Amino acid sequence: MYQLYYYPNNASLAPHFLLYHMGLEYELLLVDKKSNAQKSADYLKLNPAGRIPTLIDNGMAIFESPAICIHLCEQHPEYGLIPHLGTPERPLFFQWLAYLNNTLQAELMVRYYPHRHTNDESTIPNIIAAQDERISEALTVIDEQLAGKPYLLGEHLTACDFFLFMLAEWSLPVKKSPMHFPHLSAFLMKMAAHPTVQAVCTIEEMDLTPFNGDGGGDSGKN
Amino acid sequence: MYQLYYYPNNASLAPHFLLYHMGLEYELLLVDKKSNAQKSADYLKLNPAGRIPTLIDNGMAIFESPAICIHLCEQHPEYGLIPHLGTPERPLFFQWLAYLNNTLQAELMVRYYPHRHTNDESTIPNIIAAQDERISEALTVIDEQLAGKPYLLGEHLTACDFFLFMLAEWSLPVKKSPMHFPHLSAFLMKMAAHPTVQAVCTIEEMDLTPFNGDGGGDSGKN
Ligand SMILES: N[C@@H](CCC(=O)N[C@@H](CS)C(=O)NCC(=O)O)C(=O)O
Ligand SMILES: N[C@@H](CCC(=O)N[C@@H](CS)C(=O)NCC(=O)O)C(=O)O
Repeated sequence: MYQLYYYPNNASLAPHFLLYHMGLEYELLLVDKKSNAQKSADYLKLNPAGRIPTLIDNGMAIFESPAICIHLCEQHPEYGLIPHLGTPERPLFFQWLAYLNNTLQAELMVRYYPHRHTNDESTIPNIIAAQDERISEALTVIDEQLAGKPYLLGEHLTACDFFLFMLAEWSLPVKKSPMHFPHLSAFLMKMAAHPTVQAVCTIEEMDLTPFNGDGGGDSGKN
Repeated sequence: MYQLYYYPNNASLAPHFLLYHMGLEYELLLVDKKSNAQKSADYLKLNPAGRIPTLIDNGMAIFESPAICIHLCEQHPEYGLIPHLGTPERPLFFQWLAYLNNTLQAELMVRYYPHRHTNDESTIPNIIAAQDERISEALTVIDEQLAGKPYLLGEHLTACDFFLFMLAEWSLPVKKSPMHFPHLSAFLMKMAAHPTVQAVCTIEEMDLTPFNGDGGGDSGKN
């Protein structure tokens, strides 16, 4: 039995996809972001970084969304969401998960929380404009990687694909939507139709219509 | 035989520590950052993100510093730099490596390349000031984790410690130097005296005197 400290459509979404996909028993514990509960003394004991998500596995707290994903995949290798040790795909799994997390996710965070990165409020529109360019660059790298491949690592669905779907959803409001990239948009439409994505997005009350392929993603607001 | 595309004291430093520490055969290939060689067509074929480092393992290119570290540790488990599968330390390894990479490293990058995150040059000092605060917050989380522990995960040296040493070196010029944090500074002095760190920093012509413990790190410039 796992517990996942989550908030809808936050960095908890990728771990949530995995818990559901693997049919694991889990309980969702809402972190009330509106009252800044991720900075409460009790939560900081579990996660000193004060962010969402945290996974509890038999009383042990694990934070950092990519680390939680790796942990779930390694504990349940039968679902094939992480390539086996010794295969050439395995380092590529860690490579793309790191790239998604330290580049696309990090740039999105600066885009959505620009006031954390400047002491001068008037400059926020400049930061957002610069971030939209940087997010586009990262989406371009990912789009090229997806050319001729059904999934990020090739033939097989892995945790990286769920992680990418989460970040692509967050990217819908940026200047160039992920739905405007040819390979990425095809990938996202396929992922949005996946039963795991459909079920978890229903639980988290998320709108999947931007991925139905008829609007170029322009309706995406987050 | 490995090849590491590197530049002195760049994100290639952590993989370099590991290659040396494990006594592996490797060749260093300088990426001439001064002429922007990381964006050359040939290099982009290996690493479409256009950044340093890239590892070549038997003709296969792997990028992202944390992914390279994980790969080397998993290929050579006898050095104990990654906890074994199934141990409680293993998810904590991925947790701290992710935190270092997506938070401390990401905030440092904004601090040193602020012009990439704004279209208004005049605001750069504001960004640097905000980043210095954010880097301090991350160093505080790490300092608390090191309280009463010789290494980031506890009793044993892991790749996370080499990764942290690299990022702490980059943090020397920020407003509150890592050498001003009690547990972190003790850790850094110990790491700076480690034969692997000494040897690799000699090869990369890096100055370790800021870690000799008598100057509070104020002499650190990078
Ligand atoms: N590196 C962390 C980042 C998590 C993160 O940024 N979570 C956001 C929600 S998506 C959060 O907790 N924001 C609230 C805050 O920063 O106070 C991870 O991937 O788990
Ligand atoms: N997430 C990458 C980041 C690597 C990175 O930022 N490398 C820097 C040097 S420390 C670089 O290549 N900078 C040159 C550039 O961005 O053009 C990693 O950890 O490997």
